[in-house]
Amino acid sequence: MSTHEAGRVTFTRGGLPESHHDIHVAVVGVDGQLVASCGQADLVTFPRSSSKPIQALPLALAVPDLPDDELAVACASHAGTPAHLAVVQRLLARSGSTASDLQCGAHPPFDADAAAELICRGEAPTALHHNCSGKHAGMLLACVQHGWSREGYTSPDHPLQVVIREAHAREAGVPLEAVRVGTDGCSVPAFALSLTAAARLFARLAAPQGEHAQALQRVFRAMAAHPFLVAGPGRLDTTLMPQVDGLVTKMGAEGFYGLAVRDTPHGPLGVAIKVMDGAERPRPYVALAVLEALGVPVTPAMQDLAPGTLRNWAGREVGSVEAELHLQFA
Amino acid sequence: MSTHEAGRVTFTRGGLPESHHDIHVAVVGVDGQLVASCGQADLVTFPRSSSKPIQALPLALAVPDLPDDELAVACASHAGTPAHLAVVQRLLARSGSTASDLQCGAHPPFDADAAAELICRGEAPTALHHNCSGKHAGMLLACVQHGWSREGYTSPDHPLQVVIREAHAREAGVPLEAVRVGTDGCSVPAFALSLTAAARLFARLAAPQGEHAQALQRVFRAMAAHPFLVAGPGRLDTTLMPQVDGLVTKMGAEGFYGLAVRDTPHGPLGVAIKVMDGAERPRPYVALAVLEALGVPVTPAMQDLAPGTLRNWAGREVGSVEAELHLQFA
Repeated sequence: MSTHEAGRVTFTRGGLPESHHDIHVAVVGVDGQLVASCGQADLVTFPRSSSKPIQALPLALAVPDLPDDELAVACASHAGTPAHLAVVQRLLARSGSTASDLQCGAHPPFDADAAAELICRGEAPTALHHNCSGKHAGMLLACVQHGWSREGYTSPDHPLQVVIREAHAREAGVPLEAVRVGTDGCSVPAFALSLTAAARLFARLAAPQGEHAQALQRVFRAMAAHPFLVAGPGRLDTTLMPQVDGLVTKMGAEGFYGLAVRDTPHGPLGVAIKVMDGAERPRPYVALAVLEALGVPVTPAMQDLAPGTLRNWAGREVGSVEAELHLQFA
Repeated sequence: MSTHEAGRVTFTRGGLPESHHDIHVAVVGVDGQLVASCGQADLVTFPRSSSKPIQALPLALAVPDLPDDELAVACASHAGTPAHLAVVQRLLARSGSTASDLQCGAHPPFDADAAAELICRGEAPTALHHNCSGKHAGMLLACVQHGWSREGYTSPDHPLQVVIREAHAREAGVPLEAVRVGTDGCSVPAFALSLTAAARLFARLAAPQGEHAQALQRVFRAMAAHPFLVAGPGRLDTTLMPQVDGLVTKMGAEGFYGLAVRDTPHGPLGVAIKVMDGAERPRPYVALAVLEALGVPVTPAMQDLAPGTLRNWAGREVGSVEAELHLQFA
C-alpha cells in the first residue's frame, strides 16, 4: 500500500511535457489509520513549518486565554506585512521579550510590497520580518509561562523543544525515537516523521482528542479564523482555507503541505503531502486533486488557485498544468 | 545508452534526504556523436533561453561589425541592471527601434537591487527590464538588416523565426521536423530538441564549423568576453564562465543548461543538461560534476559556486548537498 506509484504534476509547453514534480501523499482518519495514499506513505521527511500547529501546543496549554490572532501568528509562516508584525509584537510583549530575543535570524519579508517598503526606507530586515517570528515569540512566552529559561530555547535539549518532540510523538502515535531531529531554517529543531505519522498530526487537528484536545481545538479555531495571519497576501494557506468550511492547512518548506479536513464522506481527515523536489508551485494542484478525491467539493474559486493554463509574461497561453494523482484507498 | 539511470542532486537535512532533483545530461563531440550521457540523452525538451546563441545567428550574420557587448546582450538572460539596459538601448537604436517595439512583455529586473530601485522610484518595469530584451532588440535589428518587416517578428511564420528554426536543425544536424515549436516566456517561438541535439548546438559553439562558422565563432567570443552581460550579479553564467578558459555557458528556464567547452581531454564538447522539475538550484552542482567527469579541472573557486554545506538564515549548518551523476561514456 505504501509503495504504489507516486503522483505527478506536469507542466507542458506547446503540447510537450517540459517539467514535472513527483508527489507522495498520506491521508489518515481519526483512528490514525491510513485511509488513502499515493506513492510512499511511509516516506520519512520533515514537515518543516507544517509542524507549527504542534509546536504551538505548549503555548496554547500555558496561556489558556491567548487571543486567537496571537495563537494564529504563532502557527504562521507569515509574509512580514505590517499587519503580521503588529500581532507578533503584541505576542512578544506578553513575555517581556523584544525582537533581540528572537533567535530565528532575519530575512526580507516574503510579501513583495513589504520587502520593497523596507528597501525604500533604507532599512534592513530584522528578526520580526522572519516568517517564523510569531512561532519564536510564542516559544519565548511558553518558556516564561512554564518557568523555563528563555536562554537556549532553540536547542534540542531545552525543555520546550523536548516537550515539542514528545508532542509530535504523542499526537502522531509513534515512539519518540521515530521522531527524527534536524535543524530548521529558523534554528529550532525540525522533526521528521513518516507521511502517515505527519498526516495523523493533522487528523488530530481536524478531530481533537486525547489529553490535549482542548489545545488542539484552539489551534484549529485560531488558524481557521485568521487565514491571513497564518500566511499572507496571495499565499496558499490564506487563499485556500476560506474556501472550505472546517479546513485548516499549513505549508512547510521543501514542498510539504498539511491539511486538516473536518467534513468529508470519510469523516474528519488529516493529509500530508510531500513534493519530492521541494517545489512550491505543484502545491495547489495537488491539494485540490486530493480534496476532490476525498469527496470535498472543489468550487470554481478553488480551481482559480490552480489554473490549468500556463501563461507567459505577456499573458499569452503557452502551455498547461496537469495533476495525475491516483489516490489509492486502503 | 540513452536509458541508463538519471543523475540526482539531493538536499539532506540532519542526515536525512529531504528533497532531490532528477537530472538528464548529454555530451557530444565535434563530430556530433554522443561522448557521454546520464539518464535519457534522447529526452526531447525546450532549451528555452539556452537557445539564445543560436537565435542570435541571423543577427551576427546580418551585422558583421556588431560590437561584442551588443552581441553578448542579444544572447543574454540579463538581470536588468542599468549596465545591461545601456547596452540593450544601444542595440535597439541601431534598428531605429524603441522599447515600445519590443514584444517580450515586462517583468521586474532579476537583480534585487535593480528591482528595488524601480520600486523606490515608483516606476513600473518596462520591456527593457525583461531578461530577453537584448534578444528582442537583436531580432528587430536582424529583421531590418535582412529586409524583413518588424511587424509580427515573434510569430513562428515570420521569416526571422523560420530562419532561426532552420538554424537549430542545421547546427544540431536534425531534420526540421525534429525541431518542435512551442511559445517561450517572451512570446517568440521556443524550439524543442533531444538533449543530444541540443548538446550539438553547444558543440558547434565550442568548435565552430560549417557555413556559419564565423558567426558561431563571434557569438562564442562575445559571450566569453562579456559574462556579466550574459546574465548578471551572482548568476551562474556570469560566475562560472570566467573560471574556465574557453567555456561558454547559457542557462535556460525550467532547469536547462548548455555548455560549450573548448579544452577537454576529449576535445571540444557540447553539453546539454535538464533538471526534470525545472529547479534552478541543482545547476551549479550538476555543471561541476559534469565538467569534472569530462576531465576539466574543478578549482576551489568553482567549488564555491556549489557549496556542499547547507546553511540556514542564521548561517548555521543544517544539512548538505550532494550530486550523484554517473556519466556513462559512449
